[in-house]
Amino acid sequence: MKSSSAVNSRARLPGRENKLIAGVDIGGSNLRVALADLQGNIVGRWSASTKATSSPDMVVAQIERGIDQLLSESSRSRRSLLSVAAGAPGVTDSQAGVVLATSYLKGWKDVPLRELLESALGVPASIENDVRMAALGEHWKGAARGVDDFVFLAIGTGIAAGVFANGKLIHGANWTAGEVGYMCVPDAAEEPAKSSQPGALESIIGGDGIRRQWSQAIANSRKLQDLTATEIFARASSEDTLARTVLEHSARLLAYAVYNISLVLNSALFVLGGGIGVSIPLCEATKKILEKYKEPSSPKLVISSLGTDAQMIGAIRLALTTAKKPKR
Amino acid sequence: MKSSSAVNSRARLPGRENKLIAGVDIGGSNLRVALADLQGNIVGRWSASTKATSSPDMVVAQIERGIDQLLSESSRSRRSLLSVAAGAPGVTDSQAGVVLATSYLKGWKDVPLRELLESALGVPASIENDVRMAALGEHWKGAARGVDDFVFLAIGTGIAAGVFANGKLIHGANWTAGEVGYMCVPDAAEEPAKSSQPGALESIIGGDGIRRQWSQAIANSRKLQDLTATEIFARASSEDTLARTVLEHSARLLAYAVYNISLVLNSALFVLGGGIGVSIPLCEATKKILEKYKEPSSPKLVISSLGTDAQMIGAIRLALTTAKKPKR
Repeated sequence: MKSSSAVNSRARLPGRENKLIAGVDIGGSNLRVALADLQGNIVGRWSASTKATSSPDMVVAQIERGIDQLLSESSRSRRSLLSVAAGAPGVTDSQAGVVLATSYLKGWKDVPLRELLESALGVPASIENDVRMAALGEHWKGAARGVDDFVFLAIGTGIAAGVFANGKLIHGANWTAGEVGYMCVPDAAEEPAKSSQPGALESIIGGDGIRRQWSQAIANSRKLQDLTATEIFARASSEDTLARTVLEHSARLLAYAVYNISLVLNSALFVLGGGIGVSIPLCEATKKILEKYKEPSSPKLVISSLGTDAQMIGAIRLALTTAKKPKR
Repeated sequence: MKSSSAVNSRARLPGRENKLIAGVDIGGSNLRVALADLQGNIVGRWSASTKATSSPDMVVAQIERGIDQLLSESSRSRRSLLSVAAGAPGVTDSQAGVVLATSYLKGWKDVPLRELLESALGVPASIENDVRMAALGEHWKGAARGVDDFVFLAIGTGIAAGVFANGKLIHGANWTAGEVGYMCVPDAAEEPAKSSQPGALESIIGGDGIRRQWSQAIANSRKLQDLTATEIFARASSEDTLARTVLEHSARLLAYAVYNISLVLNSALFVLGGGIGVSIPLCEATKKILEKYKEPSSPKLVISSLGTDAQMIGAIRLALTTAKKPKR
C-alpha cells in the first residue's frame, strides 16, 4: 500500500511530464542509448563503438556520456532522468543486477552492472540479457503484442531464445534459459560442445555455420566465395541451386529447433530476430517444413516487427517499469 | 476482499478439522481415489478398473462410488467432503475444466469433467493433465520440493513432461506444453509423426519402442523374447551385451531430450517418473552421458521419490487449493 501511494504522489509532482527514461543496448561491437518520455516515445538516440572500450567502467562512462549528450540535446539536465535499463550480451542475473559472464565483452565476469549504472547516474537501474530484452520489446510493441506464451528466437553469429510463458520471462535456475544454440537435432553434431565453442545447432545455422555450408557447397564451382548468410539466402530465391541447398538444409535444422522448443512450451508464436533470423527466404522455407509437423500443434512463425530495435524497445519498457518501482 | 473474508469465516466454522478432500487419478486402465484430511494426510484409498467403463458418465459414477465408500469407511457423510481434484490422461484445459482429447479413454473429447464432478458431488472440483498433476505432487512432497524450475518427465508407453517455471506449471497456448515424445533428436525419425501415431522420441524409448529395439537386437540369438523394458534394462547390469546395447541407445536418446529441454528452460532438476522412467539402470546410464554436456550447464537427474503415487499426491494438493478457493 505504501509503495503504491508513493508512486501516486510522485505522479502528481509538478513537471513529471518533462521526465525522461533511458534505454541502453550494449552489443559486442556497438553501444546504443535512447531517451524516451514516460509514454515510451523515443526523443533521442546516440551510439558509439564498444570495440576499443569494453571494460565495464569504460562502457558505463560511455553510457553516461551518451545520456548527457541526449539530455543536453533536449535541453534537459540530469534531474529530468528517472531511470535506466540496459541489455547486456551475456548470462545476466537480472535479480541481483549482475552480468555473470559474456564472451562478447572482454573481461566481463560477475560485473555488478546495475550498481555501476545507479552510482554513475543516480537513478534506479535494471539490467537484462539482450535476447530477453528483445523479447520484452516484441511483447510490448512488436510481433508478440498481447501474446503471453511466445518465443523470441535470435539468429545471428549465435542462436538464443527469449522465452515468455504465463506472460512472464523465463530465466531458469542459472539464468541460462533459452541457450538453444546447443540443441541436439538430427544432422547436427551429437557430441557435447567444448567450453567457449559454438553449440551443435548454431555451428550449422549461425552466421559462420551458414558461410561454412556455402564454402563446402561451392568447393568445386566458380561461385562467389565471400557472401554473408543473408546474401546466400537471397540467391536461393533466384534459382541458384547450391544456395538453395544451403537454405533448405538451414531451414530444416531451424524447423527441428522451433518444433522441439514448441513441444516443451506449446508457445502460440515464434518471433524470428537477429541478423539472420529476419531473412524472409529462411522464414518462408522453415514455415513450409513446419506445416507438416501437425502433432500436437504446428508452431506459428513470424519475423520480428521491431528488427534491430527490439532490444532497445525492450530496454525502454524495462526502464519505464523501473521508474515506477518503489526504491530498494 | 470479500472472498478472502469468506474463506476466513469458513475456516472458523466448527468441525472443519473433520473435513476431507478427495484426490482422483484417472488412468487408461485404472481409476484410483483417495481421501485426505486438510493437512494432506491420506485417510483411505480405493481403486477400480476403467477398462469396461470408460465413458465420462461411467467414470464419474465410479468416482462417486469410490468416494462414498471411502467416506463410509471413515464413518463420514458427503457433508464432510470439501473438494475434489482429478488428473486425466489427455490434453486438459484446467482453466475451463475440460478434457479436450485423450487417446486413453474411448470417446473422450471436450468432456466438461469439472462440471460433471461438481454436479455429481456438490463440491468445488479442479482437473489437470495427469503428468502435470504428478509434477505438482513432486513439487509439493517429492523429489522437487522447494525447486521452482524443474521438469517431471514421465516415461511409460508414451513420453511427456510436466514443466514448472517461475514456481508455476506451464500449460502453453493450447494446453499441450510438455509433449516432448515428439522431439526430433539425432538417430530418431526425422519425418513428422502421423496423427494418433507415437512421436519420434517415444517410438524409440517409450515402452513399445524399447521392446522393438530388443526384438531387433536379439533377432539372431536364442534370447528370451517377451521381456518388458524394465526387465531388459535390468539385464544390462548383468553383462548381457545385447541388453546393454539397448540400454545405451535408449539412454543416449533420453539424454538428448533432457539436454534439449534444459537448454530451453535451464531447469534446476529433472525428475524421472512413469513405469520406465523409474528404472535405475536407465537413470544411471543417462546421467553418465549428461555429465559430458557441460555447456551452458549440466542438467541434474533424479528418479521420482513418489513413484506411482506422484499423480495422486498432486491431486490431493490441487484439491486442498480448490477447497480454499472462493466459489466461482
